[in-house]
Amino acid sequence: MTTVTAYDWVPPFAQGHVRDLRVRWALNEAGREHAVELIPQGQQTQPHNLARQPFGQVPAFSEDGDTWMFESGAICWTIAEGSDALLSHDPVARAHALSWTFAAVNSVEPTVSTYNFLKTFAKDRESADRLLPEAEALLTRRLSRLSDALSNDDWLVANTFCVADLTMVCVLRPVPDALLERYPNLMAYRERGIARPAFQAALAAQMLPFTANTARYTAA
Amino acid sequence: MTTVTAYDWVPPFAQGHVRDLRVRWALNEAGREHAVELIPQGQQTQPHNLARQPFGQVPAFSEDGDTWMFESGAICWTIAEGSDALLSHDPVARAHALSWTFAAVNSVEPTVSTYNFLKTFAKDRESADRLLPEAEALLTRRLSRLSDALSNDDWLVANTFCVADLTMVCVLRPVPDALLERYPNLMAYRERGIARPAFQAALAAQMLPFTANTARYTAA
Repeated sequence: MTTVTAYDWVPPFAQGHVRDLRVRWALNEAGREHAVELIPQGQQTQPHNLARQPFGQVPAFSEDGDTWMFESGAICWTIAEGSDALLSHDPVARAHALSWTFAAVNSVEPTVSTYNFLKTFAKDRESADRLLPEAEALLTRRLSRLSDALSNDDWLVANTFCVADLTMVCVLRPVPDALLERYPNLMAYRERGIARPAFQAALAAQMLPFTANTARYTAA
Repeated sequence: MTTVTAYDWVPPFAQGHVRDLRVRWALNEAGREHAVELIPQGQQTQPHNLARQPFGQVPAFSEDGDTWMFESGAICWTIAEGSDALLSHDPVARAHALSWTFAAVNSVEPTVSTYNFLKTFAKDRESADRLLPEAEALLTRRLSRLSDALSNDDWLVANTFCVADLTMVCVLRPVPDALLERYPNLMAYRERGIARPAFQAALAAQMLPFTANTARYTAA
């Protein structure tokens, strides 16, 4: 049975953003049934979990319950290789889909990470706020090019939804509206991705245990 | 003819670190002859270059001079799929190689990027220096797990050099020695990668035009 690991609870800021979401979305698009193995908080770095996911995170993924792989990008690409719903058979479209999948996680997402580190996570707020404009410039430089590349199309590769869009839409989700609004086609692109039933089902499935376990993890 | 794009010159801090290096290294490991098309400074965002590389960067890669792909991660994976020197035929090793390749660019590299943004590139030095310890903690958390995963092996997957090592070694190159030294097996791992003749040849080939064109681009 295809299995994905996920958490049984995370703090509110991370809910709806844990990376098993990308894998669940891909599996839903591919129409593949799957089991979810919930890892309780505090168990992430148990040897048995580190053996499947060396960074002590989720998701890990197995198609036979025995061999595991990790990294949402790698897992989503692997799922896409087995599904017409996520990847074309045309070799040119395939090369472009791989290019855009890596572009999402390695050209766009690091600038989002640095921006969000300063915007939200850094504890020295005064210093972080002072550096934010520089990080915003690095991020918007990438968004501007992405906006030009998407142009008037709905999707990145041959104007057909594929694994690269799934990845890019997830990468764009934490970008603040006030910033993404400068690129109306990217705002619409992100909305278009999020509106897909396969995404909405994945999001609901991730949230289910968080809601159920809130009392357990937040009790005094 | 297999063709890679590269720059004819970059400022000294970037020399030896431009991403065509990863692709040249992969092609050398695979024993593949290739042409290099040098893009002159100032021409990166010409329409003809943006059509091949939407972010106005290098490398772009073509096997027929007609169809282009981009993103060093995507290109290296594609080269690896065609070479026993970079990827095993064993499906488990292959899944782990894809996992570690994405881990390099999406779990480790973003923490290196944020760290180096603060360490080197941010213009507000006082604020950046104050935030550096927080960014260092995020980076070393990843390095610590990577060190545990590598353990006493020489390479990440089945202890055999593959595309994931090529990518990870490149990701680790900009980590300052003083920081990487805390993980002696990672220091040795990086050295082991850099010592490979295919890497050294790639580095020399990238540097060649930079040296030749220094006078042209730095003249008063």
